[in-house]
Amino acid sequence: MPTPTEIRDLNQHVGEDVTVTGWVETTRGHGKVAFVVVRDGTGVVQGVFLKKELDAAVWDAHGTLTQEATVALSGVVREEPRAPGGYELGVTGVEVIAPSEEYPIQPKEHGVEFLLDHRHLWLRSSQQRAGLKVRAEISQATHDFFYERDFTRIDTPILTGSIGEHAGTLFETDYFGETAYLAQTGQLYVESACPAFRRVYCFGPTFRAEKSKTRRHLTEFWMVEPEVAFADSDDNMRLQEEYVSYLVERALERCSDELEVLGRDTAALERVKPPFPRISYTEAIERLQAKGSEIEWGQDLGAPDEVLITEDFDLPVFVYNYPKEAKAFYMKENPEDPRTVLCNDLLAPEGYGEIIGGSQREDDLVRLRERIAEEGLPEEAYGWYLDLRRYGSFPHSGFGLGIERTVAWITGRHHIREFIPYPRLMNRLTP
Amino acid sequence: MPTPTEIRDLNQHVGEDVTVTGWVETTRGHGKVAFVVVRDGTGVVQGVFLKKELDAAVWDAHGTLTQEATVALSGVVREEPRAPGGYELGVTGVEVIAPSEEYPIQPKEHGVEFLLDHRHLWLRSSQQRAGLKVRAEISQATHDFFYERDFTRIDTPILTGSIGEHAGTLFETDYFGETAYLAQTGQLYVESACPAFRRVYCFGPTFRAEKSKTRRHLTEFWMVEPEVAFADSDDNMRLQEEYVSYLVERALERCSDELEVLGRDTAALERVKPPFPRISYTEAIERLQAKGSEIEWGQDLGAPDEVLITEDFDLPVFVYNYPKEAKAFYMKENPEDPRTVLCNDLLAPEGYGEIIGGSQREDDLVRLRERIAEEGLPEEAYGWYLDLRRYGSFPHSGFGLGIERTVAWITGRHHIREFIPYPRLMNRLTP
Repeated sequence: MPTPTEIRDLNQHVGEDVTVTGWVETTRGHGKVAFVVVRDGTGVVQGVFLKKELDAAVWDAHGTLTQEATVALSGVVREEPRAPGGYELGVTGVEVIAPSEEYPIQPKEHGVEFLLDHRHLWLRSSQQRAGLKVRAEISQATHDFFYERDFTRIDTPILTGSIGEHAGTLFETDYFGETAYLAQTGQLYVESACPAFRRVYCFGPTFRAEKSKTRRHLTEFWMVEPEVAFADSDDNMRLQEEYVSYLVERALERCSDELEVLGRDTAALERVKPPFPRISYTEAIERLQAKGSEIEWGQDLGAPDEVLITEDFDLPVFVYNYPKEAKAFYMKENPEDPRTVLCNDLLAPEGYGEIIGGSQREDDLVRLRERIAEEGLPEEAYGWYLDLRRYGSFPHSGFGLGIERTVAWITGRHHIREFIPYPRLMNRLTP
Repeated sequence: MPTPTEIRDLNQHVGEDVTVTGWVETTRGHGKVAFVVVRDGTGVVQGVFLKKELDAAVWDAHGTLTQEATVALSGVVREEPRAPGGYELGVTGVEVIAPSEEYPIQPKEHGVEFLLDHRHLWLRSSQQRAGLKVRAEISQATHDFFYERDFTRIDTPILTGSIGEHAGTLFETDYFGETAYLAQTGQLYVESACPAFRRVYCFGPTFRAEKSKTRRHLTEFWMVEPEVAFADSDDNMRLQEEYVSYLVERALERCSDELEVLGRDTAALERVKPPFPRISYTEAIERLQAKGSEIEWGQDLGAPDEVLITEDFDLPVFVYNYPKEAKAFYMKENPEDPRTVLCNDLLAPEGYGEIIGGSQREDDLVRLRERIAEEGLPEEAYGWYLDLRRYGSFPHSGFGLGIERTVAWITGRHHIREFIPYPRLMNRLTP
């Protein structure tokens, strides 16, 4: 078999007889002409079989091609503006490398549970490919953004001896006789690296054993968590809007084909540039009450509240300085209103809701110990974290962005389970 | 407080009075002149206090500075070739932002268990900073290498319902009434994404509940696992030598300061360019026997064997085509010698041993089922994996590179626990 040409490179081979290796997506025939669409992982191309120009063996082979069979398809590259990708092959030969009989996913509607049961095959479909390609681009863009700004990547541990912020929703495992918990966040650990590197971030899987079945929950999801020494809550929001705008820009620049496959209205994305609007939690409550909500000051915003807020904006919107009791123990008390903490959520527009939670961290040892006690958390589990306030404490801020929620928003889709290769849900651990 | 200048940018402020914010590393005084070394996470700088030029309050403040106290240090930037970083500050003022009393890590020898107990503070020391900076560079270089070559990043699941390759060394957790295992590899999952994207890779944490206490074992470590459709074992080794050479080149180019802090002999790294020498497993056994080893054909190579082999080479060396019984079930049988499989390890020079294991995968459904049965593995756990051989099977190859072992080799150090921010060892789950 000759060295295969990749479909993405066909534009460099017009007029040449090349061979592509890949998988059959569809076939159709009309008596004297027949077509096959082949995907090789770098693109798709249509091959055209002309009966009068082919040996009978090659012509007849077309009829044996089945969905997802692996083939080596040879032919002459032609420009064809109407074909997917802009090129087609005038077929000269075809070899079946491996068969595919009764492929489970047919070109018809399947139920979502069936598709998730066949996730290892569903990945091959065009919309899933497009969604995961955007995820990969957003991941690379994340690393590039922080690398270019002199952040040091810090990989934080998954197996931890102490609990995170949401006790009661922890996965645990026996660790040579001890109990280890799967990390819900890397934040406490990245904080510890600030005095070494000033600007740091982690990007890895996190775990929540939440009994939620909404379209916005996964038990395993990937989170980006930057942390910056000597940054206050305002600096933190500026970094967030700069980062989110960068992600959107990269998707628009480098994933236009994928966004088209997904039917994304890109005009809504083109608007996403800093600065983003900012409203205080108190203003958010007033807006919600004016819209008829029964929410009262002091309560956390739920997903429906977030959707109501985002109706008023066509950009992502910051809601900042929530009541202390609605947020985690490590957030810094607001000196101008001690009922609140210096924090923010970032709500994506078009009804997508929270994609970021961030805060300035409590850097006062005495207050932090009080907050740990108020929350009923075991202080001994946080001894090392308190050390960061004992030995050269420093103002610092950071945030966590959920990759799946962000990609769902950027692609304009609502089920985040499509934006991780193998989603883990309350009722799904396989394949 | 004025906006702080970062130490890495001092070269742009010669002659100006600037303020840096950071942590006190050391102080010393000689009656009329005193020094402080401050680290801000972007570099270190020496501040010089001259008694005759300073207010008594500023001069006296020097005596109150303690190790790791957080300070804002103001002064005039001067070129000073003898100073660390090449610049120093003629101090004009100092403010203590937060104290640090009796910092646990003193400038003396501490036992390794003590240092690991204080990992959250040990991170601040120069050698640890250097090692983790190289790790961060190698991580970014990994993403850049694969992104530039059109690989699609695929994040594989940590929580899995089926077992990986090393049953008996699995961490497990209750998953809403089912049992989930923490992934030992992402390989089987990246294989499934090849028909969607042709070239894919994952890069994330993996877990082994091994009762090993060697300097080369962690229970949680990060692994890079590329997988390429239509690539054979030779292609696979070419990709490996290209990738490893790229990592070394990036470290040499962008981490020269860090390698110097770590005392690395960079001449040994400058040699690392493709192609790498390749010897068959059979030749490796002959070499070992000639060196007096009692190893026999059929046994896997242990770490001491690997060290003996690498003595003969000053480059990383491939050992390829091991006996079937020494390797995992998914490796493709060697058609030219069915006692062996198409695989390779890559052994780093200077006694570092294995940093990569790779193979062509068994793409024949019948043979793969036989191998699963021979190994006594439960076929039902691999149903989805077998589907990849049922529906458009394809030749493909891939490998796994352990990041901590690779960084240990590149930095010339032997304990891999220093090259992950929070090492997890058999007897260590905290901090």
